[in-house]
Amino acid sequence: MMNRNVAPEARGITFTGSTLDRADQLRVHPERLSVAWADTRARVVRLDGLDPLPDDEGMLATGPIEPGARLADHALLGLQEDGVPLFIALHVEKKPHEPPVFPPKVWQIVPHLRPDQAALYAGARSLVDWHDRHQFCACCGSPTHPVKAGWSRQCGTCGAEHFPRTDPVVIMLAEYEDKVLIARGARFPPGRFSALAGFVEPGETIEEAVRRELWEETGIRTGRVDYLFSQPWPFPSQLMIACTAQALDCALTLDLEEVAEAMWVSREEVRAALAEAPDARFQPPTPVAVAHHMLRHWLGE
Amino acid sequence: MMNRNVAPEARGITFTGSTLDRADQLRVHPERLSVAWADTRARVVRLDGLDPLPDDEGMLATGPIEPGARLADHALLGLQEDGVPLFIALHVEKKPHEPPVFPPKVWQIVPHLRPDQAALYAGARSLVDWHDRHQFCACCGSPTHPVKAGWSRQCGTCGAEHFPRTDPVVIMLAEYEDKVLIARGARFPPGRFSALAGFVEPGETIEEAVRRELWEETGIRTGRVDYLFSQPWPFPSQLMIACTAQALDCALTLDLEEVAEAMWVSREEVRAALAEAPDARFQPPTPVAVAHHMLRHWLGE
Ligand SMILES: [Zn+2]
Ligand SMILES: [Zn+2]
Repeated sequence: MMNRNVAPEARGITFTGSTLDRADQLRVHPERLSVAWADTRARVVRLDGLDPLPDDEGMLATGPIEPGARLADHALLGLQEDGVPLFIALHVEKKPHEPPVFPPKVWQIVPHLRPDQAALYAGARSLVDWHDRHQFCACCGSPTHPVKAGWSRQCGTCGAEHFPRTDPVVIMLAEYEDKVLIARGARFPPGRFSALAGFVEPGETIEEAVRRELWEETGIRTGRVDYLFSQPWPFPSQLMIACTAQALDCALTLDLEEVAEAMWVSREEVRAALAEAPDARFQPPTPVAVAHHMLRHWLGE
Repeated sequence: MMNRNVAPEARGITFTGSTLDRADQLRVHPERLSVAWADTRARVVRLDGLDPLPDDEGMLATGPIEPGARLADHALLGLQEDGVPLFIALHVEKKPHEPPVFPPKVWQIVPHLRPDQAALYAGARSLVDWHDRHQFCACCGSPTHPVKAGWSRQCGTCGAEHFPRTDPVVIMLAEYEDKVLIARGARFPPGRFSALAGFVEPGETIEEAVRRELWEETGIRTGRVDYLFSQPWPFPSQLMIACTAQALDCALTLDLEEVAEAMWVSREEVRAALAEAPDARFQPPTPVAVAHHMLRHWLGE
């Protein structure tokens, strides 16, 4: 249980540790928001489609507010520590659909960002993508428009207000006799293993979701569940809730539509995988993913 | 830190401890789903609008599948421990809008439910209400229809698939010199206090959301954050994530649009409030709410 109370941002978990003040009070005060928009120091974060554009120092590319740009087409991401307002355009030029690759290219760009900039990117990407996919009212089908500095959308017909989604996902390592359970998802390349994960459904706790997912996907029963740490995952907008679970048995019955392979691995095997040893039993999850940190945490690192 | 690893369902937290097998594999297997629908033992949970209908034993009212009822208009809630499939109709007859009362009437009905039935109700209510408010595609505005046994909706025009929302909310007790911070929300009646809470936003961790909410609403800075337990809250579909936070100072600067009053209270004051002592300094949150259990936990109960 060492270091259990080290905050996610202090562990170097990707997408944590933002230094931005989200300045939520400006969102609902049109006058204060207009002052931020009129601030000559204000910057607009630029993305490449939905991907980040890092400079040589690992900062996200920004530009000034262009002449003719409208506040109504932007979200206020917040205020930098020096008070400079940061905006982002809500219209996204999505790139033409590419055949899926693993790992996705964006995972290769993110490590080049400074940690606080990766966190800024995570929130910005999720928000912009949510706007792109929520142009219409789920209640009545009419067009919606951004309100509250881009932090919600309102329907022009029925008045319903819609807020950005954040979908809680449990991701867990089951433990049994000093081994942990890792799995290869049905869409993972051969050899690549990670922690099991699944969406929290309406009407269940974090602990219940952990036990249900382990039961559904691997057929094991679990007792005690412990929360470890969390991570925002902006593909498109998950809250990853990392836990350990004490397995009551170890016989696996896989749901082969979700899980191609699963196995119990020892500390030595995890250590070899994280060290990328040539004879390692598996390829570990990318350091961008919280599962990587869960395995390191389990080793006591 | 006593009892920190007692699961929410073992603590008697309302809406936890469901014994239903959600049987997610049936959702994606039309043949197995049809078998469940054709099971002569199958039952349909009945609601009163969105409110529960408890019988004298605290069970939710159910009925048989009516002749002519269509599977496509129902969600599969899951399988009871005896294997009986439980469904719910996705069409809800919402009651005429009533003026808001505090506490809401549904909070007075829920304590009459057996704990596992309250948990069943929470999931059912959130799911049915989500369908009611998501008849149209947020991507293109076209009508959507239920798929996967009522666990998602699909757009007939663009094909987009939409899943039920579960919105993570952090709810926290800041601690300072053996006192905790409680607050009266702007819409609470006089005297009624609870824990501070707020939605987790895209791009932040649980811990960051706790610190942001405390900063925004009360102006205090916090260090270490500890997760306690969680609760599904079906009004309409939150995942309440209960935490404690170590305050670095105690001077309060309230956001009066959100928080009418806030105060630091001692263990003795919390004990008096939970005992509903006539001279108690505040009225505690309802036992239905996780905040009630957070205060009891803080007392070491
Ligand atoms: Zn509408
Ligand atoms: Zn559509």
